[in-house]
Amino acid sequence: MTAFIHPDFLLHSNAAQRLYHDYAKTEPVFDYHNHLSPAQIAADHVFRDLTEIWLEGDHYKWRAMRANGVAETYCTGEASPREKFQAWAETVPHTLRNPLYHWTALELQRYFDIDTPLNGNTAEEIWQSANARLPQLSTQAILQQQKVAVACTTDDPADSLETHAAINATGLTTRVYPTFRPDKAYAIGNPESYRAYCEKLAATTGSTVASFDDLLAALEKRHADFHATGGRISDHGLETALADPCSLAEARAIFAKVQDGQVPSAEEQAGFGALLMLEFGRWDAGRGWTKQLHLGAVRNNNTRMFSELGPDTGFDSIGDFRQGPALTRYLSSLAETNELPKVVVYNLNPSDNYMLATLLGNFQDGTIPGKLQFGTGWWFLDQKEGMEWQMNALSNLGLLSRFVGMLTDSRSFLSFPRHEYFRRTLCNLLGAEMERGELPGDFDLVGDLVRRICFTNARDYFGLELDPKFAA
Amino acid sequence: MTAFIHPDFLLHSNAAQRLYHDYAKTEPVFDYHNHLSPAQIAADHVFRDLTEIWLEGDHYKWRAMRANGVAETYCTGEASPREKFQAWAETVPHTLRNPLYHWTALELQRYFDIDTPLNGNTAEEIWQSANARLPQLSTQAILQQQKVAVACTTDDPADSLETHAAINATGLTTRVYPTFRPDKAYAIGNPESYRAYCEKLAATTGSTVASFDDLLAALEKRHADFHATGGRISDHGLETALADPCSLAEARAIFAKVQDGQVPSAEEQAGFGALLMLEFGRWDAGRGWTKQLHLGAVRNNNTRMFSELGPDTGFDSIGDFRQGPALTRYLSSLAETNELPKVVVYNLNPSDNYMLATLLGNFQDGTIPGKLQFGTGWWFLDQKEGMEWQMNALSNLGLLSRFVGMLTDSRSFLSFPRHEYFRRTLCNLLGAEMERGELPGDFDLVGDLVRRICFTNARDYFGLELDPKFAA
Amino acid sequence: MTAFIHPDFLLHSNAAQRLYHDYAKTEPVFDYHNHLSPAQIAADHVFRDLTEIWLEGDHYKWRAMRANGVAETYCTGEASPREKFQAWAETVPHTLRNPLYHWTALELQRYFDIDTPLNGNTAEEIWQSANARLPQLSTQAILQQQKVAVACTTDDPADSLETHAAINATGLTTRVYPTFRPDKAYAIGNPESYRAYCEKLAATTGSTVASFDDLLAALEKRHADFHATGGRISDHGLETALADPCSLAEARAIFAKVQDGQVPSAEEQAGFGALLMLEFGRWDAGRGWTKQLHLGAVRNNNTRMFSELGPDTGFDSIGDFRQGPALTRYLSSLAETNELPKVVVYNLNPSDNYMLATLLGNFQDGTIPGKLQFGTGWWFLDQKEGMEWQMNALSNLGLLSRFVGMLTDSRSFLSFPRHEYFRRTLCNLLGAEMERGELPGDFDLVGDLVRRICFTNARDYFGLELDPKFAA
Repeated sequence: MTAFIHPDFLLHSNAAQRLYHDYAKTEPVFDYHNHLSPAQIAADHVFRDLTEIWLEGDHYKWRAMRANGVAETYCTGEASPREKFQAWAETVPHTLRNPLYHWTALELQRYFDIDTPLNGNTAEEIWQSANARLPQLSTQAILQQQKVAVACTTDDPADSLETHAAINATGLTTRVYPTFRPDKAYAIGNPESYRAYCEKLAATTGSTVASFDDLLAALEKRHADFHATGGRISDHGLETALADPCSLAEARAIFAKVQDGQVPSAEEQAGFGALLMLEFGRWDAGRGWTKQLHLGAVRNNNTRMFSELGPDTGFDSIGDFRQGPALTRYLSSLAETNELPKVVVYNLNPSDNYMLATLLGNFQDGTIPGKLQFGTGWWFLDQKEGMEWQMNALSNLGLLSRFVGMLTDSRSFLSFPRHEYFRRTLCNLLGAEMERGELPGDFDLVGDLVRRICFTNARDYFGLELDPKFAA
Repeated sequence: MTAFIHPDFLLHSNAAQRLYHDYAKTEPVFDYHNHLSPAQIAADHVFRDLTEIWLEGDHYKWRAMRANGVAETYCTGEASPREKFQAWAETVPHTLRNPLYHWTALELQRYFDIDTPLNGNTAEEIWQSANARLPQLSTQAILQQQKVAVACTTDDPADSLETHAAINATGLTTRVYPTFRPDKAYAIGNPESYRAYCEKLAATTGSTVASFDDLLAALEKRHADFHATGGRISDHGLETALADPCSLAEARAIFAKVQDGQVPSAEEQAGFGALLMLEFGRWDAGRGWTKQLHLGAVRNNNTRMFSELGPDTGFDSIGDFRQGPALTRYLSSLAETNELPKVVVYNLNPSDNYMLATLLGNFQDGTIPGKLQFGTGWWFLDQKEGMEWQMNALSNLGLLSRFVGMLTDSRSFLSFPRHEYFRRTLCNLLGAEMERGELPGDFDLVGDLVRRICFTNARDYFGLELDPKFAA
Repeated sequence: MTAFIHPDFLLHSNAAQRLYHDYAKTEPVFDYHNHLSPAQIAADHVFRDLTEIWLEGDHYKWRAMRANGVAETYCTGEASPREKFQAWAETVPHTLRNPLYHWTALELQRYFDIDTPLNGNTAEEIWQSANARLPQLSTQAILQQQKVAVACTTDDPADSLETHAAINATGLTTRVYPTFRPDKAYAIGNPESYRAYCEKLAATTGSTVASFDDLLAALEKRHADFHATGGRISDHGLETALADPCSLAEARAIFAKVQDGQVPSAEEQAGFGALLMLEFGRWDAGRGWTKQLHLGAVRNNNTRMFSELGPDTGFDSIGDFRQGPALTRYLSSLAETNELPKVVVYNLNPSDNYMLATLLGNFQDGTIPGKLQFGTGWWFLDQKEGMEWQMNALSNLGLLSRFVGMLTDSRSFLSFPRHEYFRRTLCNLLGAEMERGELPGDFDLVGDLVRRICFTNARDYFGLELDPKFAA
C-alpha cells in the first residue's frame, strides 16, 4: 500500500505532477510573514519533545481537541507532555477532511520520516521515534533543511532588534527580518497598559514618550531602525480598516487624556488609530516598504475562557464585518497624495473575497506589477478549499501571475511544509486546467508562472536582501 | 436504458459506491427534526391521493409552479386534486437541476416503484398507479418501511402532548418525540394574539398566565412535561439570535403592558425575547437537552400574497442579516455561568457558513464531542450543493467526524428519501477523496465515519431513548 | 499541436460536446442588453486599427494592464495606438486564468482567424494581420456575421431616438432597440448638472421641465416614444434598490429646491429616486416591458484617478451593500397594486446570489414563466466561475429552464463571442451532469433546455419584434 504522503500527493493529473516536480518543488521558501520566535532562532533552540515543538501554542489543535470532547487540562492545562500528546493523537482520526489531518501526516513525514498514521494506538511509537530525531531539528537546522531563504518575524516597534542582529551574526543563510507591527501603538482603550507601552517604547528608543508628537517621533525612529536591520514590511491586525482620522490637534488631546488615565470614546480610539495608520502608510511608501493588513478576525469571543486563559488560546473566529467602504477610504487617502505603498490585504471571510479582490484593483497604479496584493488564504482559510478560492478570485479579478504566494503565518517551526501543501494545490489547479485545455499546454509558460508564485515574485516584490545562495 | 434512479445514483466512484452500499445504506433513520403531524401518526392516516400526500402544504413545489407560470388556483387554490397534480407534472421537466427533480424521481421510485419520469404526458398513468399504492402507505407503514428509529416533531409548549402519548401507546417501533418550540411565547408584537396564546398556555398547564412570572412558570412546567414524554430537544426560528435581555423588572412591565393591549417597542420585544431565550437555554442545559437555532429566514415578503394566503405559503426566503455578534453574545452569556447546553445552529445563508462554523468552535468546551453543531443544509440549502458546502465548511473548520447528520425538516411523509439523498452525497464526497488519495484508502476508518454520521453520532448525541431494535 | 481555441474548447465530456454542437451553436444571438453605440451601427462604422476596436473604452483591459505595472499613458493616455497595443500584448501572458485570456484568444480566432497566442513577440504580426481584416468588419457586418437577432442599446430618456430610426431604415436584419435608462432623472445630488439634464429632456420632448409634474410627464412621454420605436426594456444602475418613496408633495418641493440650486439631503435624494422608480415600474408593467436592475456596483473609488480621468475608467468594483430588505420593499410595493412588471435583477456580489435568487422567488406570480429573472453573471462575474455560480443558484433555487440567458453588456463590437463562451459553459455544466447521471441522458429534454436558454426563452420573454428570419 502506498504511503498516504507519496510523491504525487494532491497532484491529480500528469500535468500537475510535472508542474510540481519540474518547477515548484525545488524553489526556495520565501516566508515573508510568520510568528516564529527570533530568540529561539538566535539560540538555535532544540526542542524537548513533540509536545513542545508541535502542540504548545497551537490553537488549531486545541480547537480540534475541544470539539472532540477533550478536557482543557490536555489542551492548555496541567497534563503532562505525554498525556497531551496522547489526547492529540486520539483526536487525529477525528480530523479527517480538516487541514490538520493533512498537515499532521505531512509534518510527520517531512521532519521525522514517519508514514504511520497517528492515532491513539500509534502514539507511543511515534512519540519515541520523533523525539529521538529532535536533537537534529534545532531551529536553524530546520530553516536550512527547509530551504528557507527569508523568514519575516512579527515584532512590535517597542521590541528590541538585538535578537535579529544576533541572528545575522550567526551566518545563517536564512535571512530573518523583523516586521513592524505597531498594533499596540493605537490600543488606547486601556490607559494603564497604554502608558506602560509608551514607557517601553521610550526605553527602547532612549527618548521620552509624553505627547503625541513624542509618540510619532519614537515610532518613526523605530520604522527607520527596522529599515536599517533590513526590514521592509509592516503589518496590522484590524477588524476593519481604520480610515477616518482625527485631526492632529485632536490626537494630541486624546493622547494627553489617555496619559491622564481617562478612557477615550470609541470614536476617539478609531480616529486616533486612523491618524496613525495614515502616518504608517506614508512611512511605508517613503521607504519602499510593503504594508500588510490582516482584516476581519473577531477575537476573544468566549468571555469565560478569555478570563481564564487570555488571548490567542483558540477562541477567535471569522467576523462578518462590512469591509469595503473603510478600506477604500484608507487606500484612497494614501493614493490621493501619491503616498500609497505596496499593500497586501489578507481576508478572513471568504464571502468578501470577490469584493476585496476587485476593490484592490481600484488602486493598481501601473508603477509596480501586482502593487496591491490580494493575500493568500489566511488562518481558517489556509487549507485547500480556502487557498483555491483565493487563487480563483485573484485569477478571475486580477493577475494570478503577479501573486507573491504563500507564507506560514505560524508560531511553529514544523509548519514549513504548508509551503509544499500550497505548491501542490497550486500545481494541481493549473495542471487540471492544462489537461482540460483551459490553460495552454505550454509548460514553459505555465511552469514559469508556478516558479514565480513559489519564489521569484516575492523576491522581486518585497525588496528584501537575500543570501547570495538564494539571490537571482 | 438504465433507470434514472439506479443503485449507484450520485455515487461517482467505486469508493463512493462501496461506502454507500456497505456502510450507509442499511443504517436506520434518525430524523431529529421535522414538521410531521403527530395526529396523522397517531391515527395511522391513509392518504386520499397523490395530491394530498405530495402537494398539500409543499411550498417548494408551489414556488416552482409559480415560477413556471402556473396560476395560484393550481397551487393553493380551488382546482381539483387531479388538476393540481397535472400542473405539477407539467412543471417537473422544468425543474431540471433543481432538487425537486431529484426528489420527485426518488420519491416515486422509493414509495411507488415508479421509474417513469413524471411530466404532463405521464401524469395520468402515474396518478393511477401511485394512488393505487396509497392504502399500503399509511403514516405508520411509511415510518416502518423507511426504518425511522426516531422522529422528532415540532410542538408549541401550549400544545397538548396527548397525541404523543397516543403514538407511544400504539407500539410503533419508531419513537416519536415532541420538540419544545416556544416561538409564540415571545411573539408579543401583537397583543391580541399574544393574550390568546397565554390563555391557551394557561389551559394546557391548568394554571393562570397573568404575569411574566406566571408565564415563566408555565413554560418551565411544559419543558418538564416534554422531558417526561421523552423529548430532549428545543427549537427556535429566529431572524438573528436574541442576545440582549431586558431585566426581570422590565420583562414584568412589558408583559403587563402587552396584556393591557399596548404594542411594545421593537427594543422591548427584543429584550423580552432575549430574556426568555436565556431562560430556555438554562433549562436545556439543566435537563441535558439540545437547543436548535434556525437562523436567517425572512418571512412573508410578498405583502399582497401574505394578506391573501397567510404564512408558510412559499413567500419566505434567505435573509442577509448580520448574524455573528448576537449569536456570540448569546452563547457566551450561557457559557459564562456554565449553562450552555448542546446547540445545533442551522444557517440559511451560505455566505455565513464559514463565519458560523468558526464562531461555534469558540464554544466547544471539551465536555461532549461535537457539543456545538453546525447543522446540515437547511431549507433552500437542503440540496447537493448546499449540503456539500455545509460539510466542507464543517470539515475544514471543525470536525466532520462528530457531525450528527441529516434530518428532513419536512411536513411530508414522502420526504424520508432525503436521508438517502444526503447519504449518497456524503459517500460521494468521501469516496472521491479516497480515490484521489486526499483521504486514506482505509474503509474501516472512513466507513466508520460514514456510519456515525448516518446514525450513531445522532443516537449518542441527543440522548433520546430508542426502541431496543435500534439501540446500540 | 491543437489550437487553443478548438471546436471542443471548454467542452469536457461527450455529452457537453453533443449539446453544444447539436443544440447551442447555431442558435441566433439575442443580445438584450449592451452599451454599443447606435451611432456607430447607423453609420456602419469601420475601425481604424485593433486599438480602436479592442482597447478603447475597455476598462477590463486597463485594470489588467495597471495591475501588470503598465503606466497610465498606455491605458487611457497619450501613447500611440501601436504602443498601447504593445503594452496590452505584453500583459496578455500575465492574464492566465483571467477571463481576458480566454476572451482574447476567442476574439482573435473568431473575428480574425488568428490562432497565434498574443504576447509581446507576436504583437506586430497580429497587429498587421488583424488590421488588414478590419475593413470587412464594419459594425453591421459584425452584427450579421455573429447572427445577432436583437441588440438592445442603453439610452437615456433625453437621448434622441433618431439614430435608432436610422438603423431601422438600413434594412439590417439585426433589430436594434433602445433601452430606457433614466439614471440621470434622479441624480439630483448635483443641482447644476441636473438642471442641464432637465433642459435636455425638455428639448428632446419639446416641452418645458420646470416642475416635478413636468418631469414625470416628459419621462412618461419618452417611455411611450421608446415603446413606439419597439423598445420593451428599461434599466437602472443602483447601489441598492430605491424603495422608500417620498410623497408627491415632497417630490415637488425637492424638485423646486434643486432647480433653485440647493443640494437636497441624502434622504431627500433617496425618497425622490424611489418615487420615480415606483412610477417607472408602473409604466413598465402597463406597457408589458421588462425592468432590469443592475445592483451592487460601487463606482469611482479612487478619488485621485476619478479627478484625473472621470468615470468608467476602471476604478469601480463590487460593493458589500445589504441588498435584501430594500429590494423586497420595492418589488412588494409594485406587487401590492398588481403593477409588478417582468424584472431581471443582475447581482454583482456573488455572496448575495443565494439570497437574491430566493428573494426573487417570492414575487413569481404564475402569470409569466420566469417573470422574475435572476440575471446572468454581470461584469466581474461574467466569467466561467461567475456564470456557473449564477446558473447553480438559479437551478437550485428557481427554474433554470426559464432563464433568458446571456447578454454582452459590452461597449465592444468584438465581444459577441461571450455568447459562445456562455453557451460552452452551459453545455459543459449540463453535459457533465448527464454523464454522471445527475441529469437524465435524454438529449431531447436537455437539448431543448439548451436551445431555450440560448435563444428561445429570451425571444418569448421580452416580446421584442424580430426580423422574420429570426422569428419562430
